[in-house]
Amino acid sequence: MTLTHTLFEALDRVPLVDPHSHIDPRSPASTNISDLLGYHYYTELAHSAGMPRERIEEPGISSEEKVARLFDHLHHIDHSVQWSWFVELSRELFGFDGDCIDRGNWKDLYELSLKKMGQPDWEEQVLRKSHVERIFLTNDFDDPLDDFDTHRYVPCLRTDDLVFHLAQATTRERLARATGVSVGTLKDLRSAIGSLFTHFKQNQVRACAISLPPWFAPRAMAVDDESAQAALKRLVLNEDPSQADRETIAYWVFWRLAEFCDDMKLPFDLMIGVNRKVYPGGVYQGQDLYDSRWSMIQYSALFNAFPRVKFPISVLASVSNQELVDYAWIFPNVIANGHWWYSNTPTFIRHDLQARIDAIPRNKIIGYYSDAYKLEFILPKYRMYKRILAQVLAETIVKQNGRSEAFAIDLGTQILRGNVDSIFFDQE
Amino acid sequence: MTLTHTLFEALDRVPLVDPHSHIDPRSPASTNISDLLGYHYYTELAHSAGMPRERIEEPGISSEEKVARLFDHLHHIDHSVQWSWFVELSRELFGFDGDCIDRGNWKDLYELSLKKMGQPDWEEQVLRKSHVERIFLTNDFDDPLDDFDTHRYVPCLRTDDLVFHLAQATTRERLARATGVSVGTLKDLRSAIGSLFTHFKQNQVRACAISLPPWFAPRAMAVDDESAQAALKRLVLNEDPSQADRETIAYWVFWRLAEFCDDMKLPFDLMIGVNRKVYPGGVYQGQDLYDSRWSMIQYSALFNAFPRVKFPISVLASVSNQELVDYAWIFPNVIANGHWWYSNTPTFIRHDLQARIDAIPRNKIIGYYSDAYKLEFILPKYRMYKRILAQVLAETIVKQNGRSEAFAIDLGTQILRGNVDSIFFDQE
Amino acid sequence: MTLTHTLFEALDRVPLVDPHSHIDPRSPASTNISDLLGYHYYTELAHSAGMPRERIEEPGISSEEKVARLFDHLHHIDHSVQWSWFVELSRELFGFDGDCIDRGNWKDLYELSLKKMGQPDWEEQVLRKSHVERIFLTNDFDDPLDDFDTHRYVPCLRTDDLVFHLAQATTRERLARATGVSVGTLKDLRSAIGSLFTHFKQNQVRACAISLPPWFAPRAMAVDDESAQAALKRLVLNEDPSQADRETIAYWVFWRLAEFCDDMKLPFDLMIGVNRKVYPGGVYQGQDLYDSRWSMIQYSALFNAFPRVKFPISVLASVSNQELVDYAWIFPNVIANGHWWYSNTPTFIRHDLQARIDAIPRNKIIGYYSDAYKLEFILPKYRMYKRILAQVLAETIVKQNGRSEAFAIDLGTQILRGNVDSIFFDQE
Repeated sequence: MTLTHTLFEALDRVPLVDPHSHIDPRSPASTNISDLLGYHYYTELAHSAGMPRERIEEPGISSEEKVARLFDHLHHIDHSVQWSWFVELSRELFGFDGDCIDRGNWKDLYELSLKKMGQPDWEEQVLRKSHVERIFLTNDFDDPLDDFDTHRYVPCLRTDDLVFHLAQATTRERLARATGVSVGTLKDLRSAIGSLFTHFKQNQVRACAISLPPWFAPRAMAVDDESAQAALKRLVLNEDPSQADRETIAYWVFWRLAEFCDDMKLPFDLMIGVNRKVYPGGVYQGQDLYDSRWSMIQYSALFNAFPRVKFPISVLASVSNQELVDYAWIFPNVIANGHWWYSNTPTFIRHDLQARIDAIPRNKIIGYYSDAYKLEFILPKYRMYKRILAQVLAETIVKQNGRSEAFAIDLGTQILRGNVDSIFFDQE
Repeated sequence: MTLTHTLFEALDRVPLVDPHSHIDPRSPASTNISDLLGYHYYTELAHSAGMPRERIEEPGISSEEKVARLFDHLHHIDHSVQWSWFVELSRELFGFDGDCIDRGNWKDLYELSLKKMGQPDWEEQVLRKSHVERIFLTNDFDDPLDDFDTHRYVPCLRTDDLVFHLAQATTRERLARATGVSVGTLKDLRSAIGSLFTHFKQNQVRACAISLPPWFAPRAMAVDDESAQAALKRLVLNEDPSQADRETIAYWVFWRLAEFCDDMKLPFDLMIGVNRKVYPGGVYQGQDLYDSRWSMIQYSALFNAFPRVKFPISVLASVSNQELVDYAWIFPNVIANGHWWYSNTPTFIRHDLQARIDAIPRNKIIGYYSDAYKLEFILPKYRMYKRILAQVLAETIVKQNGRSEAFAIDLGTQILRGNVDSIFFDQE
Repeated sequence: MTLTHTLFEALDRVPLVDPHSHIDPRSPASTNISDLLGYHYYTELAHSAGMPRERIEEPGISSEEKVARLFDHLHHIDHSVQWSWFVELSRELFGFDGDCIDRGNWKDLYELSLKKMGQPDWEEQVLRKSHVERIFLTNDFDDPLDDFDTHRYVPCLRTDDLVFHLAQATTRERLARATGVSVGTLKDLRSAIGSLFTHFKQNQVRACAISLPPWFAPRAMAVDDESAQAALKRLVLNEDPSQADRETIAYWVFWRLAEFCDDMKLPFDLMIGVNRKVYPGGVYQGQDLYDSRWSMIQYSALFNAFPRVKFPISVLASVSNQELVDYAWIFPNVIANGHWWYSNTPTFIRHDLQARIDAIPRNKIIGYYSDAYKLEFILPKYRMYKRILAQVLAETIVKQNGRSEAFAIDLGTQILRGNVDSIFFDQE
C-alpha cells in the first residue's frame, strides 16, 4: 500500500498532455454544475435508473431546475465510478468537504461552484490543479481553427462525417464551404479532403481521428475507383442512397484519409467498435452501444498497407483488449491507446492495462486520455487512471518482476506522458 | 480481511428471496444425499473425470449404491467450487465436522443425512438456516399451481416449450389440456397463451422466464402474421417441420410473450446463450454447452419495442458480461441478473460483479439466484456469492471509493435482496 | 506471501515432463546468447518497437553483431514478461548477478555465456537446473527419429503440413520419401498416413499435434469420400488449387488423423486459433496473429465422434478460455492444456488458471508446457508459471476453500506433472 502510494504520488506530479478530448476551446470550462451533470454519463445513468428523458431534456428549464431534477435520481448511482468523478472534482476544484453530495446538500455545492467558476482565471485554475499542459481536441473538418490557442488546445481532425455521412447533403455543403470544392467526382472529393488536411496541418494538427462501427473492414482492393465513382454519383443525386453505396464511399474515403496521414506524417487514431443509435429513445449522447464481435484482423490490410502511419487504437470492449495487445506486439505501427468509454471503468482498466504492460513494447502504450467535454473532468478521470497505474506497476513491475521503484516510476511516466510526446509530436 | 469479514457477516444476516430456482414445491428438500449428489453438477463432473454414464444412470440401482459408485470418482473434483458446495451444506445443515468427505467416510455422512432429512420439519430447518423467505420456481406452462404455497414458492412461467417445442405434438396436446384451446391458427395460439398468463396471474406469478440459444435475434418485423400462419399450419400438420418454420413460430410466440408481459406488468427473465444437447452422450442435464459468439445487440429491437417491460438478463459466459453491463447502463429496462450456470464460479462472479458495481445504477443489479433443484443447495451457493460480494464491496466501495462500511452494507443489501423486491414485487 | 512462497518452493522441486516444445533434439541447447535473443519473442518485439527487419535479418552478420544491434532496441521491452525470462535464465544458468542487462553490459554477459555454454555438459546442466526429465518435441512427419534419445526427447507427430499443405508439391514429395507412397488416391493417402503413425509409434511417440486456424470446423459428414477424391485429384494436378479443394482435403485428412489416434491410443493435441502470415512484413516467426471469433462448438462433432481419443486443447486467446473450461467440464475427452503463445503472459495465465481450477476435474488440467525452441527457456517460463500457480492455489484452495497446504501442494503437483504422466504415458 505504501509502495502503491509512493508510485501514485510520483505519477500525480507528471505534467500531462491529454491526447483525446471533446473540449470546446471557445468554452473549455463550465459555468455551473449543470454543465457538469449534463455530461451524458450522468443523464444517461439517471435515465437508465428510471428518470424519464422528457424530465431531463425539457426545453427551457433553468440550470438549477435541471440539477434539482437530476438529484431526484442520482442517488441510484452514488456507488458508481462515474459518480466518484463528480465527487472528486467537487472536492479538488471547489473545495467541497462534505461526505456525500445528494438531494439534501446539492444547493450548497451549486452556490459554491457558481462562486468558483465565476472567477476570471477559472480555466487556468483548473488546468493548473489538473497538471495539464496541452489538450487534444475533436475538431469538425470545417473548424476554422483560427480563434483559439492551438498550442494549448491541439487540433485533431475528426473524420466520422467524411467517412460515414457524405450521403447527407449538409455534410457535402459544409465540405464545399470549407474547401471551395463542390463534390461531384472522386477527383473533387480527393481534392477537398486534401484541402482539409492542408488547412489542419497549417494549424498545428497533431492527429487525424475517427470512430468506427464493428462491421468496418477497410481494404484498398475492396473499392476500385470505377465502382466508387458510380456510387458517389448515386449518392450525390439520391436522397436515400443504398447501404452498399454508403459503404463503398466510406471505404474509399477512409483509405484516402490513411494516404493523407501517410503523406502528412500524421498519426491516425482509430476508435473501434461503436454502433450508433442502438437506443433511439435514449437521452442526448446516450444512445450508442455495440456488438463486441469484431476482430483486429479486419484492419490487417490497413496496417500492412501503411507501415509508416502510426495507428493509436482504442477498443470499446475489454474482450477486444487481448487482440489489441497482440497486434501492438507484432505490428510496429499499432499502438495501444487509452481506455475508451465503456471500458473506462476500474475493473476493465486494471485488467486491460496489466495485459498491455506484460507484453507491449513500452514506447507503444499511450496510457490514458480524458475524453472529457469540460476541463473539470480531466482531473478525476486521470486520477482514477493514475491510481490503477500505480497499483499495476507496484504489483507487476516491483513485486512480480523485482524492479526498483525508480524503474516503475520511469515506466509509468513514459506511459502517462512520454509516449504522447514521442508519438504525436516527434512526427517530423 | 477484517473489513471483508464484517461486511460478510452483515450480508449473511439479510433474509433472502431467491429469484430463480428449479425447486419442486411438492418435494422441495432431499431425502438422502443421493438426491444431492444426483445434481447434474456432480454426475456430469464425475462423468467428465472418467466415470461411464452407464454406471451413473443404471436403472434400478439403490440410492446407496449410486452414492457408493459416485464416490469412486468424486475425488477428482475435491478441489472444485462445486464440491465445496456439498461440503459446506454437509457442515451447516447436517453438522458434519470432518476434514473432507471421501470414499473412506461417506457412509457416516449418509447415515447422518438420513437422520437429519427424516425429521418432519427438515424443510423448515433448511429454509431457516439458509435465511430464505421466498423462492421463485420454474413452472411448466401447464402447472396447475393449486397444490403448494405460492407465497413461499413463487410461480414463474417458464416458456421454453412454447417458443421452441410447439412443433412437438405433445407440447400442443399439453397446451390444449391446460387451456381448452386446440391450436390451429395464430388466433388460437394467441388466445391459448393469454389463458396461460391469466391462470398464472391468478396464482401470484411474479415473472415470465425463458432460456435462449446464441442464434436467437427476436424482431417484430421479422415475422408477419401471414407467414407465421403459414408456418404454423405446416408445423401442426407435419411431423418433421423445417428449421425455418420452427424459427418463424419461435419468434412469433416470443414476441407475443413480451406483449403479454407488458399487458400483465410481468418482468421477463431472459437467460441467454445456451445450446442444448451439444454432447448427446452426456449424463442427464449434462449435455448442454454453448457458442459464446452472440451479442446483446440481437435484443435491441426487443428492448426498444417494450420500454415498460423489465428484462432481468442472465448471460452464460463471462465474455458477454461487459455487453450486459453496458446495455443495463443505457437501457432503463435492462437489468443484470445473477451469475448463471457456467459463470457461477468464483473467478467469473468476481470479475463480472466488479464490472457491474462499477457502472450499473444500483437499483438494476439483481445479485444472485440459486438455480437450485433442492433446497439444501441454496445455503452454500448464496454463501459463496456473499463472500465474493463482501470482498468486492470492501475493495471497490470502501478502499477504492472511500465510502463507509455502512454504505457498503446498504449497497450489498440492496443488491442481495432489495432489488428482488422492487423489481418483482412492486410491479403494480 | 509466506504461504505462496511455501507452495512455490514445494512446486519448484517437482521434476518436470514438458509436454510441448520446439526443441531440436540434435541441438537442444544454445551456443551463445544470439541463439537466445534470436527467439522470435525478442526479434518481433524489437521490430515492433521500431527496429527494421532488415537490420535484424541481414544475411551474413555475426552472432555478436546481431546481439549488438538488438540491444539498441531491447530497452523498449525491459519491463516486459518476455524480457524477464531472459534475465532470469541469465541469472540462474550463467550466474549473471547484475541489476539489469542492457547496451552497457551485454558484452560481459556474452562472454560469460560463451564460457558456460561451451562446457561439454551444458545440456545436462540446463536440464538439471531446470528439473526437467523429459521433453516433448514437435517432429515433422518425415523425421527419421533414429538419431536422438527418444526417452529424453519424446516424439510428437506434428501434422500441420499434412492437413494444410498437401497442395504443395514439396509436401507430397516429402511424404513419398518418408513412406514410399506417391499419393494419387485417397487410399494412397490413408495408407501413407498410416505408415507415418506406425513409424512414430515404433519410436515412442506420445502425442499427435496440430495448430488450427479460427475458421476450422471439422466434421465427418462434411466430406464424403467421393468429393474428397475429386478434390485430391485436382490438388495433385493443379499448382494453384482452390481454397475449397484445400479445405476439403484438410477436413478429410484431419478426420483420418483422429481415426489413427483412436486406433493407436494416441492423444491428439489441438492448438486452436492462429491465422498465419497476418503480417507478411514481420520478422521470421513473427507474422502470425488471429481472429478471436471462433468457438469450441466447431469441434463438438469431433469430440462426440471420438470418445476414446484424449484431446489436450490449447487456445490462443483468453476470451476462449471459459469455453475451454466448460467443454472440459462436460466432455470426458476434452483436456485443458497449458497457456499458449499470446496467452502465455501473467495476466492471462492467472485469470485462465483460476477459472480452470474452479471448475475442471483435477485429472484434466495439464498445467503448462514451455513451447521453447532452446532448453534454456524452460527454466524461466516454468518458473513464471509456478509462481502464478502457487499464488492461485494459496488464494483459491487454501484461503477461499479452506484446504490444507499439503492438499494444495498435492493438487499443484498433479497439475504440474501428474497429469502429463497419466494422460500421455498411461495410454495403453
